[in-house]
Amino acid sequence: MDQLIYAAPAAGVLALLYAFWKAAWVRKQDAGDDTMKDIAALIQEGAMAFLKAEYKVLAVFVAIVAGLLAVANTGEGRSPLIAVSFVVGAVASGIAGWAGMRVATNANVRTTAAARTGLPAALDVAFSGGAVMGMTVVGLAILGLGGLYIAYTVGIFPGIAGLGTSITVLTGFSMGASSIALFARVGGGIYTKAADVGADLVGKVEAGLPEDDPRNPAVIADNVGDNVGDVAGMGADLFESFVGAIIGAMVLGLGFDVLNQAHGEHTISPVVMPLVIAAAGIVCSILGTFIVKTKEGGNPQHALDTGAFGSAGVMAAATFGIANYMWPQGGALVAGSTDPVLWWEVGAATVIGLVTGVSIGMITSYYCSMEKPPVDSIAEQSKTGYATNIIAGLGVGMRSTALPIIVIATGVIAASAVAGLYGVAIAALGMLSTTGIQLAVDAYGPIADNAGGIAEMSHQKPEVRERTDKLDAVGNTTAAIGKGFAIGSAAMTALALFAAFAQTAGISGIDISKPIVMGGLFIGGMLPFLFSAMAMNAVGDAAMEMIEEVRRQFREIPGLLEGTAKPDTARCVDISTKASLKRMIMPGALAIVTPVVVGFGANLLGDKMGPEALGGLLAGVTVSGVCMAIFMSNAGGAWDNAKKSFEGGGYKMSDGTVHPKGSEAHKAAVVGDTVGDPFKDTAGPSLNILVKLMSVVALVIAPLIA
Amino acid sequence: MDQLIYAAPAAGVLALLYAFWKAAWVRKQDAGDDTMKDIAALIQEGAMAFLKAEYKVLAVFVAIVAGLLAVANTGEGRSPLIAVSFVVGAVASGIAGWAGMRVATNANVRTTAAARTGLPAALDVAFSGGAVMGMTVVGLAILGLGGLYIAYTVGIFPGIAGLGTSITVLTGFSMGASSIALFARVGGGIYTKAADVGADLVGKVEAGLPEDDPRNPAVIADNVGDNVGDVAGMGADLFESFVGAIIGAMVLGLGFDVLNQAHGEHTISPVVMPLVIAAAGIVCSILGTFIVKTKEGGNPQHALDTGAFGSAGVMAAATFGIANYMWPQGGALVAGSTDPVLWWEVGAATVIGLVTGVSIGMITSYYCSMEKPPVDSIAEQSKTGYATNIIAGLGVGMRSTALPIIVIATGVIAASAVAGLYGVAIAALGMLSTTGIQLAVDAYGPIADNAGGIAEMSHQKPEVRERTDKLDAVGNTTAAIGKGFAIGSAAMTALALFAAFAQTAGISGIDISKPIVMGGLFIGGMLPFLFSAMAMNAVGDAAMEMIEEVRRQFREIPGLLEGTAKPDTARCVDISTKASLKRMIMPGALAIVTPVVVGFGANLLGDKMGPEALGGLLAGVTVSGVCMAIFMSNAGGAWDNAKKSFEGGGYKMSDGTVHPKGSEAHKAAVVGDTVGDPFKDTAGPSLNILVKLMSVVALVIAPLIA
Repeated sequence: MDQLIYAAPAAGVLALLYAFWKAAWVRKQDAGDDTMKDIAALIQEGAMAFLKAEYKVLAVFVAIVAGLLAVANTGEGRSPLIAVSFVVGAVASGIAGWAGMRVATNANVRTTAAARTGLPAALDVAFSGGAVMGMTVVGLAILGLGGLYIAYTVGIFPGIAGLGTSITVLTGFSMGASSIALFARVGGGIYTKAADVGADLVGKVEAGLPEDDPRNPAVIADNVGDNVGDVAGMGADLFESFVGAIIGAMVLGLGFDVLNQAHGEHTISPVVMPLVIAAAGIVCSILGTFIVKTKEGGNPQHALDTGAFGSAGVMAAATFGIANYMWPQGGALVAGSTDPVLWWEVGAATVIGLVTGVSIGMITSYYCSMEKPPVDSIAEQSKTGYATNIIAGLGVGMRSTALPIIVIATGVIAASAVAGLYGVAIAALGMLSTTGIQLAVDAYGPIADNAGGIAEMSHQKPEVRERTDKLDAVGNTTAAIGKGFAIGSAAMTALALFAAFAQTAGISGIDISKPIVMGGLFIGGMLPFLFSAMAMNAVGDAAMEMIEEVRRQFREIPGLLEGTAKPDTARCVDISTKASLKRMIMPGALAIVTPVVVGFGANLLGDKMGPEALGGLLAGVTVSGVCMAIFMSNAGGAWDNAKKSFEGGGYKMSDGTVHPKGSEAHKAAVVGDTVGDPFKDTAGPSLNILVKLMSVVALVIAPLIA
Repeated sequence: MDQLIYAAPAAGVLALLYAFWKAAWVRKQDAGDDTMKDIAALIQEGAMAFLKAEYKVLAVFVAIVAGLLAVANTGEGRSPLIAVSFVVGAVASGIAGWAGMRVATNANVRTTAAARTGLPAALDVAFSGGAVMGMTVVGLAILGLGGLYIAYTVGIFPGIAGLGTSITVLTGFSMGASSIALFARVGGGIYTKAADVGADLVGKVEAGLPEDDPRNPAVIADNVGDNVGDVAGMGADLFESFVGAIIGAMVLGLGFDVLNQAHGEHTISPVVMPLVIAAAGIVCSILGTFIVKTKEGGNPQHALDTGAFGSAGVMAAATFGIANYMWPQGGALVAGSTDPVLWWEVGAATVIGLVTGVSIGMITSYYCSMEKPPVDSIAEQSKTGYATNIIAGLGVGMRSTALPIIVIATGVIAASAVAGLYGVAIAALGMLSTTGIQLAVDAYGPIADNAGGIAEMSHQKPEVRERTDKLDAVGNTTAAIGKGFAIGSAAMTALALFAAFAQTAGISGIDISKPIVMGGLFIGGMLPFLFSAMAMNAVGDAAMEMIEEVRRQFREIPGLLEGTAKPDTARCVDISTKASLKRMIMPGALAIVTPVVVGFGANLLGDKMGPEALGGLLAGVTVSGVCMAIFMSNAGGAWDNAKKSFEGGGYKMSDGTVHPKGSEAHKAAVVGDTVGDPFKDTAGPSLNILVKLMSVVALVIAPLIA
């Protein structure tokens, strides 16, 4: 049965082959006329230039951290190989981002070209681009994790005796993935919003140009930003989520093993099973992509939903099958209980995870959707001006934390009731096992969005833009569910990593009524506020630089507004790149340095103080980080749709008055949307990673401070 | 030595006598001309009408909760008398609010009258009004607590055997005080902001009237709001803080006693000492009030600072004296240690508390003061419009949580290092022991503010308004320090109550790595978000009603704008009253019902689940509540002063341009200030109470769910 582990790298190879095949197919599609090709080339060059510059910075970071990890990990049960895991994780994440960005910037212009002939062809290209991204991410993740696991357990630390060391060393992979993800999310988030604000505030508002007008110097940077933030950032994000969920479950599986050994039994199934589940999830995702087709006049939404939900459903059933096959007859013991966990209880944990994720997604969607009470209340309050719109949006965002948190708390308690803390980890994995197709659906959105931009800039017929808009508009349900999975799995993975940390640090419990734990809890609870402030201020500062530059070009380049001269788009791309890279350092460093400082610092105060303070820190950052992430993402989403409520025929208030685009109420809604941008695209999604990165850093340093 | 307990009610009586004497003196002062008297009467009537209406609602609430408490507390070591404590606490808080409001609304017009002759006389009247409020609050608190303690320990549950029951029964007093405080803060906060927004948005912006213009129908409601929110709300707030800090220390002192009894020793000093410290603090506060004098052309700031800081300094020294006298020779044992705590270590905890409070106050003041980088950054970002101002303000608020939280964490760890968890409670008490004079300084602000309003409405000479403005402007440092004390003591009191809860619920620790505790932690962490959303939405809804009414009056009352007809100010007062009372129920109920539901609900899941889930809930609400409170209060304060930076000669940006009042940048700053209003005056200060109320509710139900 142990041979099943080879399914992991095999599934990884399969996913990568699928990605190569799809990427080649995308490249073969028609890329349109010369104007389209030129614009697409500018976007691709800008995006690749950003990634190159970003990777240069990150290479230095990775080298330093790898060195520190190698030096620090030389004792009993540890190994400097953790540095190798870390580098492989970081590099794999980087390659996934690079490949995804490459295909997305190939697919965008080809989607525009295909949209000239019809909707089904355009969907095919855009979704294929997304699918390449999705399969590259999960393929590299499981190939890396599975490959390293086999190398460590079979080759370097063989046998049961070495299993603990193997897993400890493997956690470096997760730390590498999470570090890169945080920088990618923060850097990409700053980039895209700085460019967006610059393009909008000066180009649209001050100069009166329409959206995506080629005379706007920041418009290429804006389109690059969509790729940098939404494609590369999201890819790295899901890479780390996928990896984190697998590793969290594996470490807790190790706890099972220890426990059962103590009872004279032995099974490594709980350790291996997460990898096998992930492998099966990849196969389900690939099958799912073949369902995603539509015909002219058909609803692409339906196609995407069928693919994503179909895969998840099949996967839930598959988990029961895997558990039935792999799980020890008679069950395996779980921490804190004398009842063994049975195979179907592990399957049930997956279902709990899926239900949790879908519920959060539906709640999120309710709070952020047009024509639902929360968004309407923001639109309504826009009538009395800017301030009331802002207060209403903040209120909706804060209020929207209630139900998802209750769902998460219930999910955690339910999953642990069926399968202990391992069940919580499996529930997180249940949400993420079909990441392949979910990411395909998520990445499809920015491709369609970019395709619309290219259509505009290259002066296509209106129907082309209409088709790309239609593509862009759908997938929202799936995207909302995906967001629910991201939040739910982040919370559950963080808790699994937290429990894994306590297990590895060798402390029997983390008692919050102890002052040192309270101290850690307070500092942890504060960090998401400080981190969000840093991210938002970074967007503000970078946007100011962009605004100055766009204003300068309008002022100094004669004939620019008349269309007789070309803007210096490269300069804007360069500004966004430099500004975002400079400003991603501090928030990223905060996440990595704090657990180290608190862990080692508190150890100076007394015995076991380090692990306890760090435990408090993790609990604090998890609870406040998850709440802030939900608050900020939903407030941003609700403001966005409140603004969109005024488009088309205008928004009808409860008093019967209709307020069209351009009205005072609409202007107030635009301000709300601008405030919401760094909420939902920079700080919000980064917080999910922050929480997990800090947990995994704690897990990695746990043996050192124990 | 046990006779020292009689110092508590004695000090209470002394404080009340002082308050009567000062109140009589205030009443004897000249109340000015008939116009002034008429306006003052309208404000007083409105304020008293609100309190009357509020107390009617609260009477029902108090009766229901008292009934439930009496019925539920009939077992071993419990007593239905807890309902009596609850009612006494609630009533004492109510009386303190009523008396403070009464004298404040007498003092405001007399301050205006005195300001016609000079600054020293005006300071004297305004500060005397504040002192009455301060002494009534601390006098009633310690008279009630001390009286009940003596009645229970001497009369009803005599001897050492009954001490535990006495203290358990006494916690009801704190619950009564905290419940009333939460409703008063939330209700008052909604009232004042609804009236403020109505007066500003319609009166000032739409109709173009100046501030405090008598033609504005909402202007009386606005002035009533200052009393209702800032005087009554603040009084109830500090009443509950003072009581909470004392009770928290007493319950933990009980733990000392149990511990030392187990070691064959016995001392009730740790139980009694908090009351004695509080009594000494009252004496110091009274002495301090005699220092507060100024002469014409002098700086009232200096007088207030000397009074407040002088009292706190003397009090710190006095604590060492008290501890030296009362604390057992050779020390007393503390939980988790074999080293006895010595008398000077208890004194040291007080100093740690004072340092913590002053540090937080200074940090808070840095983030909220004009001409300091944080406020300047908001003013600067107003140049590019509304959205950037809002983002900058939110960023400053979030960032401002970092240092205070680090200070709190350090304070908690330091205080517990010297005197265990009891030290944390004593540190909180150290900050609050001179509440009497601190509240005098705090309540003085709104009196001076009101005096300015009356000067405006009664058309006094400009120098009168200038003098009241000067009075209003000072005391900011002291108020900032007071705010630091409020935040620091809330965090520390909550932790003390939390530890007291764990002790009372009979659980040895609250392990955050258990799923049930995690679930509680998540829900607790979310509550401050939900609560803040409720409070902000309540302000929004109530303000909308006020806006409609003011618009109606301008439309329907002929000659109102020309000054030939009078506005229907009573109608506006009525609307604010009803709207705020209706909307304070839900957020208030949330705080009281949630611990009960979680505690009893989780008990259904398994043995000890209730206390553990509730422990997690308290930890979550404390950490996230304190962070949110700092974030919201400071963001609001910073926005306020960023707006004020544009007044006078205008604000000079870093590029050298000057933006005066009325410029686009100033308009953006006004929007920020409006968003900040419910942050700093409704949600922010209520969160401090929310955290403590939930802890004390948990403490009260702890024996029932154990």
